[in-house]
Amino acid sequence: MPYVKIEVIEGVTREQKAAVVADVTRSLVDRLGKRPEQVFVVIDEVSADNWGAAGILVSEREAAKREVASAANSSQ
Amino acid sequence: MPYVKIEVIEGVTREQKAAVVADVTRSLVDRLGKRPEQVFVVIDEVSADNWGAAGILVSEREAAKREVASAANSSQ
Amino acid sequence: MPYVKIEVIEGVTREQKAAVVADVTRSLVDRLGKRPEQVFVVIDEVSADNWGAAGILVSEREAAKREVASAANSSQ
Amino acid sequence: MPYVKIEVIEGVTREQKAAVVADVTRSLVDRLGKRPEQVFVVIDEVSADNWGAAGILVSEREAAKREVASAANSSQ
Amino acid sequence: MPYVKIEVIEGVTREQKAAVVADVTRSLVDRLGKRPEQVFVVIDEVSADNWGAAGILVSEREAAKREVASAANSSQ
Amino acid sequence: MPYVKIEVIEGVTREQKAAVVADVTRSLVDRLGKRPEQVFVVIDEVSADNWGAAGILVSEREAAKREVASAANSSQ
Repeated sequence: MPYVKIEVIEGVTREQKAAVVADVTRSLVDRLGKRPEQVFVVIDEVSADNWGAAGILVSEREAAKREVASAANSSQ
Repeated sequence: MPYVKIEVIEGVTREQKAAVVADVTRSLVDRLGKRPEQVFVVIDEVSADNWGAAGILVSEREAAKREVASAANSSQ
Repeated sequence: MPYVKIEVIEGVTREQKAAVVADVTRSLVDRLGKRPEQVFVVIDEVSADNWGAAGILVSEREAAKREVASAANSSQ
Repeated sequence: MPYVKIEVIEGVTREQKAAVVADVTRSLVDRLGKRPEQVFVVIDEVSADNWGAAGILVSEREAAKREVASAANSSQ
Repeated sequence: MPYVKIEVIEGVTREQKAAVVADVTRSLVDRLGKRPEQVFVVIDEVSADNWGAAGILVSEREAAKREVASAANSSQ
Repeated sequence: MPYVKIEVIEGVTREQKAAVVADVTRSLVDRLGKRPEQVFVVIDEVSADNWGAAGILVSEREAAKREVASAANSSQ
């Protein structure tokens, strides 16, 4: 009866989701002896505006990286 | 102070949500003696592309069912 | 395929849990048309030391209430 | 390695999210001695149609308040 | 930055947990291109008294199965 | 009506929990304008056997570190 929740930054294709669901289900069947039809996997795609790491929103960190890269290019 | 999270495949009307919230709150009040204003219920509607069961995305299983039904119809 | 998580302060009997699981499952069957065998309900009993409301641990608020009650009794 | 999930009614600006992520991360660093790069904070904005309190959807309670306010205005 | 939560009925060995954590992390690295050090996996072992399926606590269903088996044995 | 869940490796004192609950509640009051009595914070202390990072259980990584430290000491 396992239930699995996967939270990941958005931008995952349907094929990627299908592959992860298959992998995770197989692991729970192989390692824990669960029946596959009892395994639920829910994927939650989270906006980069809604995920913080090291105290900063992922969206802000990516914007800062782009600025640094842009400044490096324009100073060449 | 109970908190309840309900995850369900998307496609639930506002009336259905209101009914489930009322039912679940009443159960926690009646069975556990909680005060209703302390019961939070959060409903999370999950896309069929983001829910896996038995190792397969729900969206893929439904597509497969439609193909089988369509093949059955066209072979008549 | 609904999944339900119920978080509640610890101190719930097995009979109470069974009643809540039955109620919640019936609601999802009646209101949303789900099949009962597809409804998972997980109950998470949380220690009063691990639940905060209004900025205070539930265990601390209860201790404060007991002190007030005790002071009221001893001052009579 | 703390993981924090914050569920809140939708309508939060990016600046507010950034401030909350910074506050929560600082608290876990200062109070628990965690390293900031190990703190994940995920914000989940929930529709007022998907949040129930006291047995009623937040969206319905707000609609009821607006009706009362409107009736009070028109009866003046 | 994926975060994975796995809820499973209690009774999982440390070796099983280590194998599942390794499998799930590898899947997110291989399928989604995540870096392994950014993958968190949290396992939550749930008591059979706290998990309901098909409207019945798992602990009650198992007790009912044992009674049936015992009755079958004693009637032979 | 915010709900906050904090998952952290076990070994947190009651004083630390109280401080984190106070900090997080204040942040949601100050930043988002929420009323404190509507803020729930639930702390989930997770065993080092149940938390995986970079594909390895935290308990195993700590055991490996202790072995390395012990080997370094005994070789001096």
